[in-house]
Amino acid sequence: MTAERSRTGVTAPEGFRAAGVHCGIRNHHLDLAVVVSDHPAAAAAVFTTNAVKAAPLLYDRALLERTGGRARAVVIYSGVANACTGRQGDEAADWMGAETARRLDLAVDDVLVASTGVIGEQLPLDKLGEGITEAASALSIDGGPEAAKAILTTDTRIKESVRTVGGYTVGGMAKGSGMIHPDMATMLAFVTTDAVVEPEELQAMLRRAVDRSFHRITVDGDTSTNDMVVVLANGASGVAAGEGFEAPLTEVLVELARAIARDGEGASRLITVRVTGAATEADAVTVSRTIAGSPLVKTAVFGADANWGRVVAAAGRSGVAVDGSAMTLRLGGLEVLSPGYHSDYSEGEATERLNEEEVEIWLDLGMGAAEATTWTCDLTPRYVDINAGYRT
Amino acid sequence: MTAERSRTGVTAPEGFRAAGVHCGIRNHHLDLAVVVSDHPAAAAAVFTTNAVKAAPLLYDRALLERTGGRARAVVIYSGVANACTGRQGDEAADWMGAETARRLDLAVDDVLVASTGVIGEQLPLDKLGEGITEAASALSIDGGPEAAKAILTTDTRIKESVRTVGGYTVGGMAKGSGMIHPDMATMLAFVTTDAVVEPEELQAMLRRAVDRSFHRITVDGDTSTNDMVVVLANGASGVAAGEGFEAPLTEVLVELARAIARDGEGASRLITVRVTGAATEADAVTVSRTIAGSPLVKTAVFGADANWGRVVAAAGRSGVAVDGSAMTLRLGGLEVLSPGYHSDYSEGEATERLNEEEVEIWLDLGMGAAEATTWTCDLTPRYVDINAGYRT
Repeated sequence: MTAERSRTGVTAPEGFRAAGVHCGIRNHHLDLAVVVSDHPAAAAAVFTTNAVKAAPLLYDRALLERTGGRARAVVIYSGVANACTGRQGDEAADWMGAETARRLDLAVDDVLVASTGVIGEQLPLDKLGEGITEAASALSIDGGPEAAKAILTTDTRIKESVRTVGGYTVGGMAKGSGMIHPDMATMLAFVTTDAVVEPEELQAMLRRAVDRSFHRITVDGDTSTNDMVVVLANGASGVAAGEGFEAPLTEVLVELARAIARDGEGASRLITVRVTGAATEADAVTVSRTIAGSPLVKTAVFGADANWGRVVAAAGRSGVAVDGSAMTLRLGGLEVLSPGYHSDYSEGEATERLNEEEVEIWLDLGMGAAEATTWTCDLTPRYVDINAGYRT
Repeated sequence: MTAERSRTGVTAPEGFRAAGVHCGIRNHHLDLAVVVSDHPAAAAAVFTTNAVKAAPLLYDRALLERTGGRARAVVIYSGVANACTGRQGDEAADWMGAETARRLDLAVDDVLVASTGVIGEQLPLDKLGEGITEAASALSIDGGPEAAKAILTTDTRIKESVRTVGGYTVGGMAKGSGMIHPDMATMLAFVTTDAVVEPEELQAMLRRAVDRSFHRITVDGDTSTNDMVVVLANGASGVAAGEGFEAPLTEVLVELARAIARDGEGASRLITVRVTGAATEADAVTVSRTIAGSPLVKTAVFGADANWGRVVAAAGRSGVAVDGSAMTLRLGGLEVLSPGYHSDYSEGEATERLNEEEVEIWLDLGMGAAEATTWTCDLTPRYVDINAGYRT
């Protein structure tokens, strides 16, 4: 049991092995990850809402339809996206799945595929083949962190999460730092569990959990062609989780989502936008997303400037019928605006609160009892630097 | 006639005088502008769609309702926004209109008011009063450029436009560089004409012209509480313009809108996003706006990086049912993508095209015959610098 407890991420649950290797495409970076279950597993996935979907997503969607929500392994390449690559890209995704299955002694339909990176370039199959061979022999029950490292692109740190409840464990890893938006964005997340969950309920719970986690983060409003969240449930604990599975699943996804927001490209702070006092939850979600998506709000937080007018203005343009004079706004716990547009606070105190590593923007609309939370990061000059020269 | 031809902006049409003065609030900046017609004039206005509207906008809307679309003057202060200022702010807007009317020997209902700047601060009435007095005595038929300068905030250059057609003239000035978005943003525009136009048709034509100009630019997706476009038509030319007025009005507004996009905070390039081959014009507008609003596209242009995948991905997440494999994409006239995801071009050539001061992103969706154009600017580290410390 002690050994188990030290395991993190996707190898924390029983019966999963993983590996992350460098297959020579990106210099000095791990770039290929494999996660595999020792037993047959239920599988569920949520894919990007982008109308342009990368080849791996189309491959996986078809696979899960064929198998009725069953798969045992995932292979993830973080060098190129294999998006907008035409027929050659489709064939490359097929090959990647088949080659991994061959090396793992699995059926072709046991293996899901994923990629992330530059759009429009073809997968380098030779090097990928070598990497798959190497990963297959490196698989281990301690491989979670290496796999979590291998899926990163512009991320600055690995993102893992684990919850153990009622005799089973949920573990996850994620990748994502730019192009993050409520509609899923360039973000990959892989979750494993040794709970017993049937495919159909797994898919339903995953969809709801994604709505309350990855769909509540935004970095720059862009969404990608490649994003996906995959869950594999292999039942190795023998515990039938039932509906109770949704809570730890959501917790793991929220922790991963917050880690992604915190690691937004060039970000220096995690921003939590909490909107309360809304007439409906939908209103609260819309207002909090609009504030979290505002470049002016995000730059103000970067500058530790308590420019509360930008928050009110963002709420105003959200499309929700808000009333500025009914609002209460707190920045890092400090009330800077109360109803009737009363504003009386110390700028020095506000700057101090905004200089924390985590900043909460809490806007009460004064119109009802519904609320919602969105996570984002500040917008810094470094974001621009990173994205102006990503390909070169 | 020669003297008239040298006049620019809002004083180009007959019978208008203007002034821009420094009333001592912002150091070394002109900050108060007055534009006045020598004759009664028809007046029309379009206001921000932000649910939180600044005091001057509410004042003007009520005024134009009372007068049935008539006014003779506008006073504009570019120090604070007078937004989110409660009852005291409403009273300050009243005072600003009444004081200007008194100094100009006009009726209170002849004077529209406008402001821009930081949200949440109160107007400095004493200094404003001195400025109004000074502006009233400085009014001149050559005052257009000074007025155009006095309405600026973070703008780096004045924005004026003039068209003379069929015996009458349309002149305009605008302010705006950040917070610019299709829904109007922190943007002020004032247009004068000596054509004869009735209030009702003036309002209808203004609304359509705004749809094809200011609603087609985006800098950062934020919209403000203060934006407005005002037109005064004093009939001094004696020419009844009729429906023909809409064309030169639209041209003036498009020229001002492009000038605003080019002067986006920290911008180094004007980007024209032209979308053709759409099934409907609404689709074309949606796709072009989404591309123009993408931080990843805007940073790629800043870096002169022909990262065409970001354009395709932005189109994909626009909500329009597009097909990536049907697209043709040209950057600065260079075809970088053709149907079937064929991409074969010289990176050096592409970088050269993207290094021009004006860059056209032309995406053909291959789905129909409708098209639309949106203007924006690149996203640079300077944008962040400007907005991180705007108040200080």
